[in-house]
Amino acid sequence: MSGQARTTLHASSKAAVLDVIRAAGTISRVGLINATGFTGATISTVVRRLIDEGLVLETGRAESTGGKRRVLLQLNHASRYAIGVHLDHAGITYVLTNLGGAVVARITRQGAGTEEPARVVTRMAAEVRALVDRVGVEPDRVLGVGLVTPGPLRASGMALTPPSMRKWEDYPLDRALAEETGLPVLLDNDATAAALGEHWSGGVGGTSTSAALYMGTGIGAGLVIGGITYRGTSGNAGEVGHTCVDALGPECWCGARGCVEALAGPAAVVAAARADQALARMVGLTGTKRARPSVAADFAAVSRAARRGEPQALAILERSARYIAVAARNLANTMDLDVLVLTGPSFAVAGSVYLPIVRDELDRGFFARAAHQVDVRLSRSAATAPAIGGAAMVLQSELVPLHEGMRLPENLSAAEPAFLTQPSA
Amino acid sequence: MSGQARTTLHASSKAAVLDVIRAAGTISRVGLINATGFTGATISTVVRRLIDEGLVLETGRAESTGGKRRVLLQLNHASRYAIGVHLDHAGITYVLTNLGGAVVARITRQGAGTEEPARVVTRMAAEVRALVDRVGVEPDRVLGVGLVTPGPLRASGMALTPPSMRKWEDYPLDRALAEETGLPVLLDNDATAAALGEHWSGGVGGTSTSAALYMGTGIGAGLVIGGITYRGTSGNAGEVGHTCVDALGPECWCGARGCVEALAGPAAVVAAARADQALARMVGLTGTKRARPSVAADFAAVSRAARRGEPQALAILERSARYIAVAARNLANTMDLDVLVLTGPSFAVAGSVYLPIVRDELDRGFFARAAHQVDVRLSRSAATAPAIGGAAMVLQSELVPLHEGMRLPENLSAAEPAFLTQPSA
Repeated sequence: MSGQARTTLHASSKAAVLDVIRAAGTISRVGLINATGFTGATISTVVRRLIDEGLVLETGRAESTGGKRRVLLQLNHASRYAIGVHLDHAGITYVLTNLGGAVVARITRQGAGTEEPARVVTRMAAEVRALVDRVGVEPDRVLGVGLVTPGPLRASGMALTPPSMRKWEDYPLDRALAEETGLPVLLDNDATAAALGEHWSGGVGGTSTSAALYMGTGIGAGLVIGGITYRGTSGNAGEVGHTCVDALGPECWCGARGCVEALAGPAAVVAAARADQALARMVGLTGTKRARPSVAADFAAVSRAARRGEPQALAILERSARYIAVAARNLANTMDLDVLVLTGPSFAVAGSVYLPIVRDELDRGFFARAAHQVDVRLSRSAATAPAIGGAAMVLQSELVPLHEGMRLPENLSAAEPAFLTQPSA
Repeated sequence: MSGQARTTLHASSKAAVLDVIRAAGTISRVGLINATGFTGATISTVVRRLIDEGLVLETGRAESTGGKRRVLLQLNHASRYAIGVHLDHAGITYVLTNLGGAVVARITRQGAGTEEPARVVTRMAAEVRALVDRVGVEPDRVLGVGLVTPGPLRASGMALTPPSMRKWEDYPLDRALAEETGLPVLLDNDATAAALGEHWSGGVGGTSTSAALYMGTGIGAGLVIGGITYRGTSGNAGEVGHTCVDALGPECWCGARGCVEALAGPAAVVAAARADQALARMVGLTGTKRARPSVAADFAAVSRAARRGEPQALAILERSARYIAVAARNLANTMDLDVLVLTGPSFAVAGSVYLPIVRDELDRGFFARAAHQVDVRLSRSAATAPAIGGAAMVLQSELVPLHEGMRLPENLSAAEPAFLTQPSA
């Protein structure tokens, strides 16, 4: 077998073994043989290398099962760290995770707002340093930064930005952040990162075909096929916020007509609430009370009112939910999904209104319902899933070293985030 | 490496080598080394086995390039054959292909119509035998039958059939055909098979993320990711005919509302033509002239009139095309497609009307257009792509022996058609 093929096999077996150890918590070499189907020889070679690299520890022995008690292995959680940064107009969320993907620190700071991109990036680099210092992690144990933004993306930076982030169009934010932090930066879109975050936090994935339907300020979906993030031709798969649910509907900022984001996204919900002056006053929309209007803050205010049972607020959210349920059905019929997780900041505040309506639409309208149902869930970490997914991107790129070229369709490769930027040496 | 891992590697390398030989036509062992990245040792082992199995032939030598002239290899096209059967209400298309996927015989017979499924299956088995006899292929060289029907599917047979094929719901047609022919039967839906047919005939695939948008009597899509057919959780991915492009639109036979098939599929086109009595007379719709109405025949008649420039016929098709273009944009935005091929019997007769409208919609409305365009094409084998794809399913199951379990997401496995039925021994 050629060197290339050998490293490929090695990369995939190393990644498989690490992922089994991560998922198992603690496991013996025999357990790894059973879980991976590799021989004892392969497992002992791979495990030895992982121990040498400091990624895996031997920790005590399992209870005797008659024979010799087995040495247990676990990830050396403190051996590597990753940073996830979720940049949005309303806020910037930072997480620091260990090698196991557990969040060891999390901070949320002021969003991009109307600030100049260069100033925001300088602030982000400082906030990243502060996060690492606060936890006392040695900088050389930080693998890199997973930077998560609204899509669509292109190398390098955002393209066709939403109105609230127009200044960022064509700004090379990943390169700029790599320069300011001195760390490799992986860039991906919020919905894809959220799906990866759900997968790592056990929400979706495994062998299923699952999607994370993401709603922050915008709407998108992250697709996970058999545990692998599907990114499409240019890293922009899952842009369901710009799928049409009304061919004669209003024009969207993206230039198309009848997009579900334009009809039913947070901005549309807030606009509908603002049009009802009594409701706008009652829930205290920004712009009516405070200076700078914020879609995220206003959507949260409408959601709180709906959860209190305010009929007008509830009616506005339920109308939004019916459109989003249709987009969810379209996604399920296109991908033949078996799991759909609702995640992202907006579902974190309004998920209880959306979940039953999306569930009902899929129970009644999913095309292959005679073959199986779609399991629709609300995420347990809806607000932080994108940042956690950003960190998970970095960890995956360690668990599966970049450019080892596993024999998978290239746009399915777990090793390849949408875009990678190395700081210049 | 474990036995399992070794057969896995072998299955994937054998499949990779065969597919490279198939695509190349003729190639030397050195050419295979360069194309696959395998070592000379691996290539010579795999090639020897393929020659022993009679799948590959040595055919003469390449022109000297200075050194020793190289032995050329090619598929032994006549060593194996596969049958593809495309069952639809309007007609049944049969193709016999050799190992290279070349069509050596093709017949079209009367469709399922209103006949009893059991009688139709008996007729299909006889027509399959007649096809094989006519070409004079030894029956033991026929690998099996790829049976292609409208979706959705479940093991065994169709589920939630379109109105015209209601009798087939829950009828175990693949098992019945396996019994009647004594051949293994692979069952898959028309759109997925069409995509595979396009891939084998060079229309889509390679490393791209491509889709075949299929329009026969119904509408669906087949998805090919990096050359591998994506089938979803239950083999029912790509059901875009039942994605919604008008949330308040008419109810579809599938039970949902605003499906593009209900708004703009061939049946809707024919209904619109029928409502215009002058047009109905002029194009000679069935039911007005002949006894049994046929959506396929009537859609073809309206399409001929539109191609002749009849304004009413053209207006009806263009309205249909605008809706289908929206569904195509939704699919492209969800999958981040780089290639979309229009295929199937209805695009075979009306593609010239639909192509420019779908192209225009994607040029203007594809969300990631800042990153790349979507290449929209009209199939060169739109009428027979599903049957060719059915045969290709059988060939793939030979090129990649079933259940060797390549390390791919299971619902992406090229080795696994939607459903396999063996005749009882």
